[in-house]
Amino acid sequence: MSEVEELGKKARAAASKLATMTTSAKDEALLAMADALVSGAPLIVERNKADLESGREQGISGALMDRLTLTEARIGEMAEGLREVAAMRDPVGEIVDGWRMNNGLAVEKVRVPLGVVGIIYEARPNVTVDAAGLCMKSGNAVVLRGSSNAINSNTVLVEVISEAAGKARLPRDCMQLVRSTDRDAAREMMRLHGLIDVLIPRGGAGLIRTVVENSTVPVIETGTGNCHIYVDSSADVEMAVAITVNAKTQRPGVCNAAEKLLVHGDIAGVFLPAAAKALREKGVTLKGDDAARAIVEGMEEAVEEDWYTEFLDLILAVKVVTDLDEAIAHIGKYSSGHSEAIITRDYGSGKRFTDEVDSAAVYVNASTRFTDGAQFGMGAEIGISTQKLHARGPMSLTELTSAKFVIRGEGQVRK
Amino acid sequence: MSEVEELGKKARAAASKLATMTTSAKDEALLAMADALVSGAPLIVERNKADLESGREQGISGALMDRLTLTEARIGEMAEGLREVAAMRDPVGEIVDGWRMNNGLAVEKVRVPLGVVGIIYEARPNVTVDAAGLCMKSGNAVVLRGSSNAINSNTVLVEVISEAAGKARLPRDCMQLVRSTDRDAAREMMRLHGLIDVLIPRGGAGLIRTVVENSTVPVIETGTGNCHIYVDSSADVEMAVAITVNAKTQRPGVCNAAEKLLVHGDIAGVFLPAAAKALREKGVTLKGDDAARAIVEGMEEAVEEDWYTEFLDLILAVKVVTDLDEAIAHIGKYSSGHSEAIITRDYGSGKRFTDEVDSAAVYVNASTRFTDGAQFGMGAEIGISTQKLHARGPMSLTELTSAKFVIRGEGQVRK
Repeated sequence: MSEVEELGKKARAAASKLATMTTSAKDEALLAMADALVSGAPLIVERNKADLESGREQGISGALMDRLTLTEARIGEMAEGLREVAAMRDPVGEIVDGWRMNNGLAVEKVRVPLGVVGIIYEARPNVTVDAAGLCMKSGNAVVLRGSSNAINSNTVLVEVISEAAGKARLPRDCMQLVRSTDRDAAREMMRLHGLIDVLIPRGGAGLIRTVVENSTVPVIETGTGNCHIYVDSSADVEMAVAITVNAKTQRPGVCNAAEKLLVHGDIAGVFLPAAAKALREKGVTLKGDDAARAIVEGMEEAVEEDWYTEFLDLILAVKVVTDLDEAIAHIGKYSSGHSEAIITRDYGSGKRFTDEVDSAAVYVNASTRFTDGAQFGMGAEIGISTQKLHARGPMSLTELTSAKFVIRGEGQVRK
Repeated sequence: MSEVEELGKKARAAASKLATMTTSAKDEALLAMADALVSGAPLIVERNKADLESGREQGISGALMDRLTLTEARIGEMAEGLREVAAMRDPVGEIVDGWRMNNGLAVEKVRVPLGVVGIIYEARPNVTVDAAGLCMKSGNAVVLRGSSNAINSNTVLVEVISEAAGKARLPRDCMQLVRSTDRDAAREMMRLHGLIDVLIPRGGAGLIRTVVENSTVPVIETGTGNCHIYVDSSADVEMAVAITVNAKTQRPGVCNAAEKLLVHGDIAGVFLPAAAKALREKGVTLKGDDAARAIVEGMEEAVEEDWYTEFLDLILAVKVVTDLDEAIAHIGKYSSGHSEAIITRDYGSGKRFTDEVDSAAVYVNASTRFTDGAQFGMGAEIGISTQKLHARGPMSLTELTSAKFVIRGEGQVRK
């Protein structure tokens, strides 16, 4: 049996036990894991140095090195994250629906864990702890497969938290880290149909495509955000500028940041110069179609490829559209289905935009940056689903569950 | 562009229109489709003969020929099915949840169609009409891929109902039949990621495995039912016999029929002879483990393979277990996760069984034959999901939807 298959089987066995553990037992384990991270911080920082060293040798970028770096403060934040998850409501056991059939059978639809959740992720070692915490609270075992860059950090993190979970009487095997960092191990993990119930890739578009193409395990696609702001002809210009600047620049490297700006032709002459000025003051590079470039000087030309691209940087592509129909059609064609906003004072435009734009989050007069589990009040999230099956938008504890029907009778048979 | 890709694109375009159609418009179209089936019945029966003829030439089995045969009465039943779907509540537009954020943003979670649903199915032409009706009511376009055996029947059915839908001002393209019946067309359909939102295979275990192995489109697995009855030591023997006979024989060829009988050792000596007598009177062949065969004479020996097999026939495999733990472990190992029942008078056994058995439907003192959308009161179903992602158990209109977040503000930006 390969390493990956063995991990899958261990996780499956642990999942059966974890599924029926009480909320108190899970919360105690989460708090113990948090304490263990804090007291284990010096060890974790020490082991993290090995990843940083080989990162330096490989010449990986400064931004990536920063994400990879674990400090006592960052480990403290991870621990705090686990305590927050412990404080969240346990979705398992919730009776979602229930009724009595004509023949007297009592039907309940009860929330249960998914079983075994697989996470394939890049760089950031904090995903290891965040994902393990959310999975454990929702009663799921987790199989983690991080990047080779972070293998020493991920290994020590899983050692520390799974030991603490085990001491707190949870099945230690409920957290499994795939230690081989070669591609074959990841591919094998994607084929563990029957052992892993769902795979959630967290990383760039390339990783997500690879998982979708190769997985027989059901996949939830997350986190690709080619988000649009559409400024309607009736928009409040000041509000439109403020929202555009916020959505683009408040944190440009994240999936809910705006990447595209569509502007109604009737307002472009007034809005675009003001927006361009404010955006450039924040260091944003603008790319535009011909109409936008005719209004704002010094814009680069936007090419077809740009309309599909998630820049994740201080770059914004701008297009002038003739009407709402063109804006909706453009979003339908190029968007990744994450978050889109209309800025308008017109009731009908707002209604049509929210009715017809088919993305996870559709805004009227607000920044796309709010698409986030914590911002929405749903709590910590394991990712933002940009697909329609099972979960859409921020995925938190409830989205890590399934349901089963429990039917109680006194001898009913079918006629 | 291949036929399949072209169909996918047409369906995707039609889905955008269908998503925002009113319930009245969809219901009128469903009723028009029902009327068109009734008035088109002579033509449909005529075209069906071509399938029956080539079926006879290929020497396909009597049961299959029966499923393939369309009569005016059967077409009338399909029409009635569409009228029932028209009478069901439209899930689209339902506000599933909603709240106000601290900053005043109003969040709504609104039910929306999935988009394009792909169905790959075997034999029965009635699936064509049933699936098209449920997809249309839930605002989804549908791409249908039936078996080559039924191609003439499926073609005329889609012609008749899509013409009626078109006349009733629905996008005609919302129902697409894949006309090539070779394997490549089906494989290509499984790779239409981005054009098809979900694939639902309906057929035998082989078909489902092929779809899971080859699909990049998300798949919902349906309808494999290796269902268990567990007779606890405290069971009412008369009730246990009645439920076992019903679950096995009331309709043996369907997915919610019992395939396995587990019996507590303490009651096996009393229960098994009574059950065997009643089952054999209904023509059931019994296979047993050594302990069962020591109690009931003339049982065939059950082999390892039998415990995994969905017989779909008047065959029942019987095993004597030492306790509830063994029963739960056996079900966990061999079940397909469809429906399982415990027959017991003991409160604790019932509670443990419903808590620990991880299947779509778990019964206490009732027949597994009730796992069905109509029986549950959920209405007509497109299949019974045996997986945990997105939907579990009977899938009706609600299970053919997703949700999106609509957020309304007055200029909110993130700090």
